[in-house]
Amino acid sequence: MNYDLVVIGGSAAGLIAAKTAKLANPEKSVLIVRMEEISLVPCGIPYIFSTLNSIDENKMGIDPIKKLGVDFLIEKVEKVSVKEKKILTFKTEISYDKLVFATGSTPFTPPIEGVRQKGVFIIPKDYEYLKGMLEPISKAKNVVVIGAGFIGVEVSDEIRKQGKKVTIVEALDRVLPLAFDEDISAIVNEQILSSGLDVRTGSKVKRIIGKNGQAVAIELDNGDVLDADAIILSTGYKPNTKLAAEAGLFMGRYDAIWTDEYQKTSVKDVFAAGDCAEHKDFFTRKSTKLMLASTATYDARVAGMNLFGIKLVKQNKGNISIFSSAIDGLAMGAAGITEATAQSEGFVIRIGKSNAVDRHPGTIPDKSAQTVKLIFSKSGGTLLGAQVVSGKSAGELINVLGMAIQHGLSAIDLVTLQFGTHPLLTASPTMYPIIIAAESVAREII
Amino acid sequence: MNYDLVVIGGSAAGLIAAKTAKLANPEKSVLIVRMEEISLVPCGIPYIFSTLNSIDENKMGIDPIKKLGVDFLIEKVEKVSVKEKKILTFKTEISYDKLVFATGSTPFTPPIEGVRQKGVFIIPKDYEYLKGMLEPISKAKNVVVIGAGFIGVEVSDEIRKQGKKVTIVEALDRVLPLAFDEDISAIVNEQILSSGLDVRTGSKVKRIIGKNGQAVAIELDNGDVLDADAIILSTGYKPNTKLAAEAGLFMGRYDAIWTDEYQKTSVKDVFAAGDCAEHKDFFTRKSTKLMLASTATYDARVAGMNLFGIKLVKQNKGNISIFSSAIDGLAMGAAGITEATAQSEGFVIRIGKSNAVDRHPGTIPDKSAQTVKLIFSKSGGTLLGAQVVSGKSAGELINVLGMAIQHGLSAIDLVTLQFGTHPLLTASPTMYPIIIAAESVAREII
Repeated sequence: MNYDLVVIGGSAAGLIAAKTAKLANPEKSVLIVRMEEISLVPCGIPYIFSTLNSIDENKMGIDPIKKLGVDFLIEKVEKVSVKEKKILTFKTEISYDKLVFATGSTPFTPPIEGVRQKGVFIIPKDYEYLKGMLEPISKAKNVVVIGAGFIGVEVSDEIRKQGKKVTIVEALDRVLPLAFDEDISAIVNEQILSSGLDVRTGSKVKRIIGKNGQAVAIELDNGDVLDADAIILSTGYKPNTKLAAEAGLFMGRYDAIWTDEYQKTSVKDVFAAGDCAEHKDFFTRKSTKLMLASTATYDARVAGMNLFGIKLVKQNKGNISIFSSAIDGLAMGAAGITEATAQSEGFVIRIGKSNAVDRHPGTIPDKSAQTVKLIFSKSGGTLLGAQVVSGKSAGELINVLGMAIQHGLSAIDLVTLQFGTHPLLTASPTMYPIIIAAESVAREII
Repeated sequence: MNYDLVVIGGSAAGLIAAKTAKLANPEKSVLIVRMEEISLVPCGIPYIFSTLNSIDENKMGIDPIKKLGVDFLIEKVEKVSVKEKKILTFKTEISYDKLVFATGSTPFTPPIEGVRQKGVFIIPKDYEYLKGMLEPISKAKNVVVIGAGFIGVEVSDEIRKQGKKVTIVEALDRVLPLAFDEDISAIVNEQILSSGLDVRTGSKVKRIIGKNGQAVAIELDNGDVLDADAIILSTGYKPNTKLAAEAGLFMGRYDAIWTDEYQKTSVKDVFAAGDCAEHKDFFTRKSTKLMLASTATYDARVAGMNLFGIKLVKQNKGNISIFSSAIDGLAMGAAGITEATAQSEGFVIRIGKSNAVDRHPGTIPDKSAQTVKLIFSKSGGTLLGAQVVSGKSAGELINVLGMAIQHGLSAIDLVTLQFGTHPLLTASPTMYPIIIAAESVAREII
């Protein structure tokens, strides 16, 4: 077989890289090689436990991409020869002109005693594994989730909705410790506790206690033992880069594939996108462990447009983390760097904050409390980061702030920006949270 | 009396001008002179008819502004002498160093035969008037609303929720004819009709038919007669500028007070903000009839920061209209110029469009259909306008697009922008509507 473009991996990054390249170059032949017959919407995975009616509702449709003329081969790639410009599966040899690694990531399994027993689960992006996990979870009485990052918290909230007792164990001192500063995660923590979830922060797992090879409890560092007939490890992901490393691609930090600004790897005609690729922070240019589907699709669009000639010239923007989530009806989002990160990296900052409601007037039904925290550089007032807790409009509100960060807006830019407002949809024009949070900082500067 | 700053008018613009000035200059004495003991949240007014429990829930609180040390005088200003730097009420004479006109607007009453009868109402920002209107509306069987702009449509939707038969009469060929292009207002129109509202577009009112001085019906141009025991005129507002004109301020187009980029009028030390001030379009610099509370607060912040010395240097950005609304659960927003306006002004454009859902995967509960239409300049691909129909996140989604317009972003900027996504809050990363709508246009450019 011979293709102009071969993409290894067919989740968010692979599909979008192939789609973007095909749309930009309809005359080129494009093949996606992936292991899975069925792939899942990655960020939808927590919702297979309750909100969605079945795991099949979380399938990622590939028909629109097939319709564009992209071919699929469901096989495992065993070897890549960048010298011969070929990839090999057990059955097939495929020549390429351009190659994209979009091999994703797999859960990191921490070396805890007893971790290899029945009843201990991870959250991979794997249809069959997750399907097999649904029944034991539904039969469990006590579920312990290890790790209070977004996936851990979302999965916990969903399993709680099944009526289970769910306990989250987190080694750091709070939930969502990387995305939010203390003041903001305190709000989230309160919501989590009031929802009925149990949270053990500052707690390390000593061992998983088993009985006849089945996990039955978890022992914490402080000696506490929690009953657990199901344990879910949510302690991070690591890039799938064995194939790329064997092919001789230069590896960046955290074992991810190094790429330049156009997603080109160290080898000519070979690109990488998504969780398997190294990401650099927007403000510090340091490597980050950013693994978001939105980041993956961003990489993939950049790669897809630039595969056959760099058309989309970038000015070294780096990656910005923009998260959002909703837990027990409370929505939240974060973009850019936190106050804590700013301080540890040595940024001299000012903080602006707004506390109000997300609709107006304050008497209107269906409103939610809305907190917006903005982190600015002290001189110049450049926006470095933002954190939001709010009703469901938080998802787009954090995108307003993400755009502001990516385009270098300052507190002064924000207070002279025109926003739209409406009683049923947003905070009031007199109390619009981005303005209120930026205003105090703008005043100190002007 | 003697104040460093006197603000005439105490609605959105007046309050925010005074607040901003006081926060920036705590040592200055600030007085707001206004006619009304009670002022209302302007954009909340339609919601006094159903969503809010009473008109009192729509009061605009002034205690936080009083607490800052801003004084209030509830009197009607009769005369302004810019030469002597004084304002006069019947009882009081006040000297000022700086003066802000924030006198707002009043409904325009069209010269229809029979318009001065009982049962014919306008929608002023007047607590007493609106309070007096609630009972006759609640007793009416058939209500006719003249004018299908945002206020007309919102008021109609609210009165419909009381269980009334409500008919909207609009002279132009569709609802919301100025904010949305035909394709988008068709979606809105469908929702309006399915909600039970009756809509008569392309219909002019010939006369209001009365009986003993009470309106009972409305006759249209085509001879149709609609029963109506309450008729609401929602045909636009005009700036309150009699006082300013008498004081000798230069008037701009549409009888609004001319201002420069810092909200300074033609007279030294006199500023104007909000509905009474002239607004200039962001792209054409033509006068617009823009009268939004969000625009008013924008003016007021600019004026407030620059009253005692221009600190916030602007680069002649002009005004951009950013609207949002929700009708019968469908949310919508518009920013910048429409395709129709672009064409009538001579812009050579390209259109990008996305049709998907506002959550992901598409199977998730509580999703809404989401349409995003983007209007770009053909060469360069600068974003000129945006229209959104969606679930409730439309209010912040249109602010993402409003920011993009105000900062000159192009289709290429948008496709390389990083957005955050989440199943419960936004469209999927692979189908994020701003990216999808920008992509086809970006491809044609690169």
